[in-house]
Amino acid sequence: MTQTSAEPFHSRHLLTLEGMDSADLTALLDRAAQFRVHFASDPRPLTLLEGRTVVNLFFEPSTRTRMSFELAARRLGAITINFDVANASTRKGETLEDTLATIEAMACDAFIVRHSENGTPQRLAAHARRAAILNAGDGNRAHPTQGLTDLLTLRDRKDRVAGLDVVICGDIRHSRVARSAIHGLQALGVGRIRLCGPAHLLPDADEVPGCELGDDFDAALENVDAIMMLRIQKERMRDEEATGDNYFDRYGLTAARLRRARHDAIVLHPGPINRGVEIASDVADGPQSVILDQVTNGIFVRMAALATLLEPNA
Amino acid sequence: MTQTSAEPFHSRHLLTLEGMDSADLTALLDRAAQFRVHFASDPRPLTLLEGRTVVNLFFEPSTRTRMSFELAARRLGAITINFDVANASTRKGETLEDTLATIEAMACDAFIVRHSENGTPQRLAAHARRAAILNAGDGNRAHPTQGLTDLLTLRDRKDRVAGLDVVICGDIRHSRVARSAIHGLQALGVGRIRLCGPAHLLPDADEVPGCELGDDFDAALENVDAIMMLRIQKERMRDEEATGDNYFDRYGLTAARLRRARHDAIVLHPGPINRGVEIASDVADGPQSVILDQVTNGIFVRMAALATLLEPNA
Amino acid sequence: MTQTSAEPFHSRHLLTLEGMDSADLTALLDRAAQFRVHFASDPRPLTLLEGRTVVNLFFEPSTRTRMSFELAARRLGAITINFDVANASTRKGETLEDTLATIEAMACDAFIVRHSENGTPQRLAAHARRAAILNAGDGNRAHPTQGLTDLLTLRDRKDRVAGLDVVICGDIRHSRVARSAIHGLQALGVGRIRLCGPAHLLPDADEVPGCELGDDFDAALENVDAIMMLRIQKERMRDEEATGDNYFDRYGLTAARLRRARHDAIVLHPGPINRGVEIASDVADGPQSVILDQVTNGIFVRMAALATLLEPNA
Repeated sequence: MTQTSAEPFHSRHLLTLEGMDSADLTALLDRAAQFRVHFASDPRPLTLLEGRTVVNLFFEPSTRTRMSFELAARRLGAITINFDVANASTRKGETLEDTLATIEAMACDAFIVRHSENGTPQRLAAHARRAAILNAGDGNRAHPTQGLTDLLTLRDRKDRVAGLDVVICGDIRHSRVARSAIHGLQALGVGRIRLCGPAHLLPDADEVPGCELGDDFDAALENVDAIMMLRIQKERMRDEEATGDNYFDRYGLTAARLRRARHDAIVLHPGPINRGVEIASDVADGPQSVILDQVTNGIFVRMAALATLLEPNA
Repeated sequence: MTQTSAEPFHSRHLLTLEGMDSADLTALLDRAAQFRVHFASDPRPLTLLEGRTVVNLFFEPSTRTRMSFELAARRLGAITINFDVANASTRKGETLEDTLATIEAMACDAFIVRHSENGTPQRLAAHARRAAILNAGDGNRAHPTQGLTDLLTLRDRKDRVAGLDVVICGDIRHSRVARSAIHGLQALGVGRIRLCGPAHLLPDADEVPGCELGDDFDAALENVDAIMMLRIQKERMRDEEATGDNYFDRYGLTAARLRRARHDAIVLHPGPINRGVEIASDVADGPQSVILDQVTNGIFVRMAALATLLEPNA
Repeated sequence: MTQTSAEPFHSRHLLTLEGMDSADLTALLDRAAQFRVHFASDPRPLTLLEGRTVVNLFFEPSTRTRMSFELAARRLGAITINFDVANASTRKGETLEDTLATIEAMACDAFIVRHSENGTPQRLAAHARRAAILNAGDGNRAHPTQGLTDLLTLRDRKDRVAGLDVVICGDIRHSRVARSAIHGLQALGVGRIRLCGPAHLLPDADEVPGCELGDDFDAALENVDAIMMLRIQKERMRDEEATGDNYFDRYGLTAARLRRARHDAIVLHPGPINRGVEIASDVADGPQSVILDQVTNGIFVRMAALATLLEPNA
């Protein structure tokens, strides 16, 4: 899925949404939606991936993404196993490549990889003999299944992605979630993408071609169809922002501010949310919020990704 | 199960035995006994909870209760998943309610909750949209499945609970095990309940209506049908008790002391036992001990609770 | 399997390869090979151990052995569960025997035990009521499934073990892997076994009857059929060895050194490997290396051990 192609899912790995074309993305979203329909009527695990083993290889802590992948794999009938990083052989001087080769030799079929360093999933994909690598987040570079989750949720509520105007607000500079969302949105022909946040948390403009950058959230919200809020980490705030409610005053999504967007605009957030830091409680819990839909959809897009990579012809 | 009713299992949650009536309790115990009969002849997992997902949400460390719930769920055919508290989103500022809502949005059906604060399971039950909350121990308040375990073990050996005289000995003040046992025993019409321990480890009398309190273990043991020993934590002892064998001399269950009870009295302990601290080895391993039966029954009452809450009509 | 017998698998436990006879070993290796054939054509889990529960009881950290046992058990259809040593009841004063009895009372059928103290698996086996104990490594004493892995890999490549000349190189004094390999090789009628390493890392001669000891790796390599390299832990090196590449110069397996062995000699290593410490990268990755085959075979010998102990008549 790393090169463009008219044939969907010709790649063995899911490393990034960058470079994926509309057909590939749409096929994944369609498959996720099919799984959702199926499980609504019958929640029993499928047997599609029976005999397959999926390994969680998380070098950064994660609760929700790890759980989401694990549930996705098990609901497809796969065996899942967690690689215990705290006690890992890599700590005993083994290279990451040798760790991969060793686990792969145990007849493991897919690796869900999260790592703080950009490019680790690519590095592992280059060394995998036959296993699929699924990127569960690397550095600030990519988080493709989160991107797919956002696309599916957006498409559900708006019936399309093409032509929609979207604002993404928060610490975009350090956000792999934002990068994967941008790549996916652009591939599906989104309208305008406005990236908004304090100047020091915005990316360099040449990193995000086709996006508008700005630090005025009120202006950025005007008439958008969707607002993607990002989690803000306090240690990334500057002193003046971290004082009192300064950040919330400028970048917090309140009900008043939300009214600047289209009346039917939806609010996304990858979670976990900081109530009162980047989003007001009444917005998070309000009718325009699709935050919990994103969580639900996250399982289905991960099922789609696993099924597509491990059972391309099913 | 938190209010009394003639109809069994009308509640969505299992939070406490307090207020449960005899019919509800008996139905749960009967179902546990049925599972025991079934598994004695066929140990293969059932499919009753196929398609259901059970989440372990343990905010206090636990080995045996967590394992017992996990095995119970898997032997019913459910998927189980552990929420990784050490890396949890709640550490990142997410509220417990948001954590619950998020995991629930992953199509999870039941949460096994242990927490050091009284009332956390109730708080989660109030927020759960459709999932069942099963209390695996909160503060010193309730541990309902341990209480059910004690009831089932007692009923097995004595053919009834009604009319039995029971002594509970140890740190009752801080014990959720004792509280759930008392609630269950009283609902089933137990005879006398004597609570025994050092004065500073006894509860306030108005907290345990219908129970007799005392600090003389020898007197309390006279003619009882069952002795429930509690684990004593050294940090809860007073200086004079912690010195040498003072505690054991007064409150340790020895073979000599056991002879004060009825000749067919049984000895229960929720484990893990401290040999030579609250119980002598020959008593723990002797013919009147039902400590390992409790462990075995623990699985079956948890199966009964899960099955009843998640498949009430099966 | 701890006493010799003409009837295979008459024991309930797998504690050591010491004293196992050729028939027992061969039956296990044959069964492992059968599983390998089966899974090559159909990777779906078997139902052989459906209804059985296998407990990982690892008191020493382990990544690969734990994963290997867990995958083996699950591919046979068993439920697996990890005993959480960090939060274990043994930390609360419970004896190891009581921990075992408690988990066994939860209807668990097999315990995979790793412990830093020699003899812990034997101690548990003496107390187990009906469960099987499988030693996953105790102290420097035994690691029987690793020994079986080495035997299977050797037999695959050489069509026999009888008569082969083998060198084992590294920290043999502290190696349970070496001890189990020696016991297995000797039971199958291996030719010469040469143990090689710095004098202070060699075992006492009377501990390894029938083996030749020496500190000259070049001499030991002459005309051998197989080279088993052991992982060297830097903290076990003496000062003069730890300086620069001194250890590698004398005991590292390089391509040049490998040419002293027979041209078709194979290179084994239990992993994780230290590239450039005890083995050169080109040797580890070269055509004579069977290191990844060992990893793959490890699953199948563990399946054979579990199936044989838990379903002897299947």
